Amino acid sequence: MNPSNIDIARVQREIDDLALISENPPPVVTRVLFSDADLKARECVISMFRDAALSVREDAIGNIFARWEGADPSVPAVATGSHIDAIPNAGKYDGVVGVLGAVEAVRALKRDRFQPRRSIEIIVFTAEEPTRFGIGCLGSRWLAGTLSYEKLASLRDTEGQGLDFWRAHARLNPVGQPPRYAHFVELHIEQGPILERRGLDIGVVEKIAAPSSLRLKLEGVGGHAGAVLMPERRDALLAGAEIALAVEKAALATGSPDTVATTGVFRIEPGAVNSVPCRATLEIDLRDTQLSPRDSALRQIQDSARDISRRRGVALEIEIVNADPPAACDPALVELICGVCGDLQLPFAKMISRAYHDSLFMALLCPTAMIFIPCRNGVSHRPDEFASPAHIQNGVAALAGTLRRLAS
Amino acid sequence: MNPSNIDIARVQREIDDLALISENPPPVVTRVLFSDADLKARECVISMFRDAALSVREDAIGNIFARWEGADPSVPAVATGSHIDAIPNAGKYDGVVGVLGAVEAVRALKRDRFQPRRSIEIIVFTAEEPTRFGIGCLGSRWLAGTLSYEKLASLRDTEGQGLDFWRAHARLNPVGQPPRYAHFVELHIEQGPILERRGLDIGVVEKIAAPSSLRLKLEGVGGHAGAVLMPERRDALLAGAEIALAVEKAALATGSPDTVATTGVFRIEPGAVNSVPCRATLEIDLRDTQLSPRDSALRQIQDSARDISRRRGVALEIEIVNADPPAACDPALVELICGVCGDLQLPFAKMISRAYHDSLFMALLCPTAMIFIPCRNGVSHRPDEFASPAHIQNGVAALAGTLRRLAS
Repeated sequence: MNPSNIDIARVQREIDDLALISENPPPVVTRVLFSDADLKARECVISMFRDAALSVREDAIGNIFARWEGADPSVPAVATGSHIDAIPNAGKYDGVVGVLGAVEAVRALKRDRFQPRRSIEIIVFTAEEPTRFGIGCLGSRWLAGTLSYEKLASLRDTEGQGLDFWRAHARLNPVGQPPRYAHFVELHIEQGPILERRGLDIGVVEKIAAPSSLRLKLEGVGGHAGAVLMPERRDALLAGAEIALAVEKAALATGSPDTVATTGVFRIEPGAVNSVPCRATLEIDLRDTQLSPRDSALRQIQDSARDISRRRGVALEIEIVNADPPAACDPALVELICGVCGDLQLPFAKMISRAYHDSLFMALLCPTAMIFIPCRNGVSHRPDEFASPAHIQNGVAALAGTLRRLAS
Repeated sequence: MNPSNIDIARVQREIDDLALISENPPPVVTRVLFSDADLKARECVISMFRDAALSVREDAIGNIFARWEGADPSVPAVATGSHIDAIPNAGKYDGVVGVLGAVEAVRALKRDRFQPRRSIEIIVFTAEEPTRFGIGCLGSRWLAGTLSYEKLASLRDTEGQGLDFWRAHARLNPVGQPPRYAHFVELHIEQGPILERRGLDIGVVEKIAAPSSLRLKLEGVGGHAGAVLMPERRDALLAGAEIALAVEKAALATGSPDTVATTGVFRIEPGAVNSVPCRATLEIDLRDTQLSPRDSALRQIQDSARDISRRRGVALEIEIVNADPPAACDPALVELICGVCGDLQLPFAKMISRAYHDSLFMALLCPTAMIFIPCRNGVSHRPDEFASPAHIQNGVAALAGTLRRLAS
């Protein structure tokens, strides 16, 4: 599938249009799972799937599947896809390129009169982003069978609502059996600076870093900011501030340059200038490409949090939201994608994904790999996130070529 | 005015009823300036004033005045009052005791067939709490003439709305001239533990601590929590965390045991677990009974904030929201209140107010003093804030006795 066969003008227009469906005005994209914007965006891609003559179904957790039936429906399908939910104040390419790019790959294959033997399915995964429930990749975890019903039932958002409430709100209409797949390939922006720096068009992902996240609840004692003297205080914010700094220190102390740790959520109560903060909630993200430094930082963060909160007389609750191992992509599939890039004369390299993706969990279900394209300055999760039309065009061409080989 | 003449059952019922008008369910009281709950609470006290046959007016900033016309309307009135707005997650006594207690004091004086020579006015001050605009005592600052039009015009809440928007929303109907007062007396819960510990019924306030507050805006660089390596980060939350700890350190370093400093507001953006925080907003409250240690801590906090943000490559904006001097109460008025307490055989002591009150600014306008009553464990700004009916009854009796002497 030559890049010139990809209708990049149309893909770009579709990306731009989807970006307008947001909880915030342009250029900001915010689409929290099952928010009005997310639901509208889901309708929008479903209608695009139908226009491409794909049959659409949903499962119980809200994953969307768009199917191009192959000549032999009895063999497992080839799957591709990504997500369209977006964290607050995000951009328009993260996830979206892998969904709208997949639609164009299918359209291009159809224009080329390709007849798949295996069916091809595009998946839009529910909640790759952890914004609502503090845990990401809900949809792919569910497909991979790594989510217990107990875990699902225990999920709560900041308003105290669980998954059942939001599933009802989204009017999900689940049908069909859990799918079986022969392969999964995900097209995605790199969300890092390596491809751009090296002047490469494509990164073929061999390994995905091991992600983990923690939720900490701190309960101190509030009071009037004027009347409670300093030695009497049990300030939840100050304990949280020390812990956030300990999180940074733990990441720097592993000896691995790949360890990254972030306190991305930090909320205090009551949040009034003249009131001593009585409660703090921290959500911490911690990753490494290797499991051992990741786990050593994970232990260190918990130890520090316990020491700090004990010293400050603040009660501490630690919840390990997830602590997943790294994923290895399928070596044969990686070589196949490298072959496609070679045929297309696209400069490429094998690489590691520091960000996690639904592929991390799809790798538990079937042979999986990812196709990365460059994004400007490596920026992601921000309104100025940008991938050039030419790079998207090359990525879609590589995806289409890969799907063609896998579905033949 | 003997405490037995105070209808404490009625006052307690009125306090309980007003507490139900809240943005949060009981026992939490939240009434942010000009919120629906605040507007409903304003209507409620206005109707109580009218039931007590007081004439009611508002001024341009939303202060409410309820007037009992004296025999000689040409002489300046005696004023009392406090506030009914409440920070998020507050209790039902802060401010409210001074407003509803004043109504009962007037009713008791009327039942006693007292005929005032000077008029008596009850004032409900707008926004004693700084929640909406980050600056407290808006109403009393306005009466004292310490607020410039430029300052008023520059006020913005977290939604970007200014005072004019909220004045229109509240449908204020300002009438009359700026009032002149002979005296101002404010009844209030102590918001500290001293009266309870010493077994006293009444505190007569001689001095009010010097309050100040700062707003800090930090702008770093966001990005994907998995992809941005630690040495490349310019994390606004981590800068904010260091600053919050520096605020505590500055308060402890003044050498004055009375210095208190609090980071009461700490907001980050985008606030997603897998995103490096790009922005942080801190609001800091800093006080001392003496000006010199307060000002030394104020300088130290700014210096530390500049050092920390420079080292972390995070842009910093500092706004000094207010830096007010301490207020001295009027010695003659303090002695008069002490005399009333003596006559009523109420155990009392002179004391300092660590919390600030509208009296801080009313003291610029006319001779001012405050009557404190104990609150359980010194707790305030929390749902479990509590003042006993017996203590409230004594406080109202002391207020009524004081008003009687001042208005005779």
